[in-house]
Amino acid sequence: MSNAKVLPLLEPDDVAACCPPLNERPMSAEEAEVAARMFKALGDPVRLRLFSAVASHEGGEACVCDISDVGVSQPTVSHHLKKLKEAGLLSSERRGTWVYYRVEPSVVAAMGALLAGATTTA
Amino acid sequence: MSNAKVLPLLEPDDVAACCPPLNERPMSAEEAEVAARMFKALGDPVRLRLFSAVASHEGGEACVCDISDVGVSQPTVSHHLKKLKEAGLLSSERRGTWVYYRVEPSVVAAMGALLAGATTTA
Repeated sequence: MSNAKVLPLLEPDDVAACCPPLNERPMSAEEAEVAARMFKALGDPVRLRLFSAVASHEGGEACVCDISDVGVSQPTVSHHLKKLKEAGLLSSERRGTWVYYRVEPSVVAAMGALLAGATTTA
Repeated sequence: MSNAKVLPLLEPDDVAACCPPLNERPMSAEEAEVAARMFKALGDPVRLRLFSAVASHEGGEACVCDISDVGVSQPTVSHHLKKLKEAGLLSSERRGTWVYYRVEPSVVAAMGALLAGATTTA
């Protein structure tokens, strides 16, 4: 399930600083490494559904206990939420028994801005 | 290099129709399948750099002949551009010897809109 290569956690600031709109100039190798990790994290249907479940949950946050209808086991849900966190897309906070996940607005906004740039020709 | 499972080409209309903003409601399995393919296509650093090279090239289009500075061979560039096309992110047109690639604005806008939704809490 896990990759042999362990990548450092992406912090929201790293990602918000990276990257220019896609049509501004060709991305550098370093910028592409950071941004590709975020896109890759959303490039799995189950993970994307979980991300959407957190984003659309009441109050904009959810714990594993709130998410049970995507057809995978609770450990698998936890695994995917951890991957989304490692990519900087979710933040988490432990409260009592459960870890609550929340969408990182700055990171998702940075991804959106990156794409928004690509829709107008240079 | 290629997956055993061959997926149909995504057409711009399929993608623009899919999907709701991520924070509106949890995505269905079908919506997530379509959207995850687009994100996965951008989830590779080389492919992301090529996408950015096309998007930022003069006139918003480029052929393999225009892209030579990402450190991979021309056949590899062609391979990745084909993958981006299969995901619906690029369209292509043959003119003479070369195939010219162009960003599909409706598709990229749909991806941007999907993410834009996730930045405001429900």
